[in-house]
Amino acid sequence: MEPSGIVTLLTDFGRDGPYVAAMKGALLAVNPRVVLVDGTHDVAPQQILQGAFLLDAYWRYFPAGTVHVAVVDPGVGTPRVGVAMLAGSHYFVGPDNGLFSYLGRLATHVVRLVPGRHTRPEVSATFHGRDVFAPVAGYLSRGERLDALGERQSGVHVLAEAWPRRQGGQHRGTVLHVDRFGNLITNFRGEDLTGAAGVRLGRRVISRRVRTYADAPVGEPVWLVGSTDWVEVAMRDASAAQYLRVGLGDEARVE
Amino acid sequence: MEPSGIVTLLTDFGRDGPYVAAMKGALLAVNPRVVLVDGTHDVAPQQILQGAFLLDAYWRYFPAGTVHVAVVDPGVGTPRVGVAMLAGSHYFVGPDNGLFSYLGRLATHVVRLVPGRHTRPEVSATFHGRDVFAPVAGYLSRGERLDALGERQSGVHVLAEAWPRRQGGQHRGTVLHVDRFGNLITNFRGEDLTGAAGVRLGRRVISRRVRTYADAPVGEPVWLVGSTDWVEVAMRDASAAQYLRVGLGDEARVE
Amino acid sequence: MEPSGIVTLLTDFGRDGPYVAAMKGALLAVNPRVVLVDGTHDVAPQQILQGAFLLDAYWRYFPAGTVHVAVVDPGVGTPRVGVAMLAGSHYFVGPDNGLFSYLGRLATHVVRLVPGRHTRPEVSATFHGRDVFAPVAGYLSRGERLDALGERQSGVHVLAEAWPRRQGGQHRGTVLHVDRFGNLITNFRGEDLTGAAGVRLGRRVISRRVRTYADAPVGEPVWLVGSTDWVEVAMRDASAAQYLRVGLGDEARVE
Repeated sequence: MEPSGIVTLLTDFGRDGPYVAAMKGALLAVNPRVVLVDGTHDVAPQQILQGAFLLDAYWRYFPAGTVHVAVVDPGVGTPRVGVAMLAGSHYFVGPDNGLFSYLGRLATHVVRLVPGRHTRPEVSATFHGRDVFAPVAGYLSRGERLDALGERQSGVHVLAEAWPRRQGGQHRGTVLHVDRFGNLITNFRGEDLTGAAGVRLGRRVISRRVRTYADAPVGEPVWLVGSTDWVEVAMRDASAAQYLRVGLGDEARVE
Repeated sequence: MEPSGIVTLLTDFGRDGPYVAAMKGALLAVNPRVVLVDGTHDVAPQQILQGAFLLDAYWRYFPAGTVHVAVVDPGVGTPRVGVAMLAGSHYFVGPDNGLFSYLGRLATHVVRLVPGRHTRPEVSATFHGRDVFAPVAGYLSRGERLDALGERQSGVHVLAEAWPRRQGGQHRGTVLHVDRFGNLITNFRGEDLTGAAGVRLGRRVISRRVRTYADAPVGEPVWLVGSTDWVEVAMRDASAAQYLRVGLGDEARVE
Repeated sequence: MEPSGIVTLLTDFGRDGPYVAAMKGALLAVNPRVVLVDGTHDVAPQQILQGAFLLDAYWRYFPAGTVHVAVVDPGVGTPRVGVAMLAGSHYFVGPDNGLFSYLGRLATHVVRLVPGRHTRPEVSATFHGRDVFAPVAGYLSRGERLDALGERQSGVHVLAEAWPRRQGGQHRGTVLHVDRFGNLITNFRGEDLTGAAGVRLGRRVISRRVRTYADAPVGEPVWLVGSTDWVEVAMRDASAAQYLRVGLGDEARVE
């Protein structure tokens, strides 16, 4: 796959430190012509599944051949594996800890990165975003082949919590993300709610479905299939998260 | 007007979600050579007038022919109109809900967008930033003509609150924005205060005028004509907003 | 030094206002082909030393010839001096108030900016980031010579607090930065702790050293030489800043 020359970055580093800029510098040092786009840097600290969701919500809108670096990496400095891969005609680079859970089925070519190959000459124990993943992304964006970066492996780590589990008559999922409007995004798809009474969050079952936010009556939580194709719970001009007292990682249930 | 190849983006989406990146992907899919610049994504949720102020405070510093996309869009999915226009040798794209209030007088060529033309093939009910406004901005940045994007209309919607109203002997305005230093930016111009005792915010009349922040005495709120050309109220090394207990959308009055 | 065509920006303006975008517009108006990268805009308001630290933590990873603009500028509008300089094969532009403390020894060529030269035609009293430093950075990124921008001076202002002071048997330093994980970054180097019992923060001496975050035992603060080469105090899956009740600018001591 021909690279598009674009690299996106997702991290849990926040924007108030020097870490994102250091990664971008390391990337530009390898490929000064690359176009950098921020995914987000506000993944909650070490929330791998939220990172997986956020990445999944934007990568497909970029041109084919774009490289997406993702670093939510609580295991940095331990022998956990870093990977680079091709999935759905895009490239992905990051730790193999579940960040690529939603890409597992699409991954056609995965390599585990070999320390020292295409990385910065000195690799720190605490910052592989700058010293490993950014340079590797830089090389991919210049056309380097995956097989030059590491050794083939057969797939990527998929978190058990990525998809809802059936248990008895119930379907247990989770809240993947709370956006700034207070909308609660779950890991259910629209079809999971076919025939169901609604989705339970906390002590409440949300049963009214709407097409768009403006269709919601004031004061009542509703559900919709949002722009990310997941079932989300929202309120008109209010925060569903606050109203329901539900947050990131809490359980969502279909009964 | 020849496009500059630059597109700026202003939204109320925040930076912690996938929405801004999805918009940028959709834009780069149309024009992979575009240069993207963030205006801000921290407009308070659904605060159209604040969005109008923020856009007005930066667009003019960019090269002529720059495209500015703005999406603060509580009416998404309802039959509200989207527009693209030329104003002051720059292009603007977004919902016609008052976001372009401060550009109304400069607008020389306005078109209402036609759903399906130059948009993504599937337009969601909840995310026209990604599915409509970003692709339209991409086409404009590549040189597409306005008339190819939609049908002419005669102007844009201007919010009544955009400018102060005269009422009896008073001049009633509003706080457009509170910046991170706690400075309160009003919709008065310097000349509105000629001969006046000062500007009233909450229970206090601020009468001392300074030229720059460092000229303010400690502990006393002052006013100045700030870098955005609006009258702002500030305190030295302190937050005027906290001290006066005044915030976004509160009334400002000249007596 | 040949410019790389890249400019980074560090400010204390925050991302919720129009100020960063206005700076970028002013820069692109001078050099529409420049590649802009955000350092950070979340330096705590007017915290010059934190700004100096953050800049120091990323500039060296960019290609040689990159221009780094830094604006933390409480003295804007007063007769404080603005500078442009070459240090370590990179360019730097900003107020000469200590922001470049960690670059002082590397600076080989410093000029004080002359108001009106290579600035916007009208220079406001409150926003030299947009009206002076951004355009100057634009000209540098296009290859303008330093001597064309102003008059030589012999060095830059270095803050006394930038480095720890020896006092009696003690070595007194400071907390330069608290990152979003709650890690406390001090202005000690690893060698400063050779033979010492540890580093004192608040009422606690942190004596256990680790190589990487994952090596820390749960519930106990540790120190390590972090990715920025400074000594930092961290906790596993917790905020050392909250646990120790220590923050930006607080004292750190080696005994």
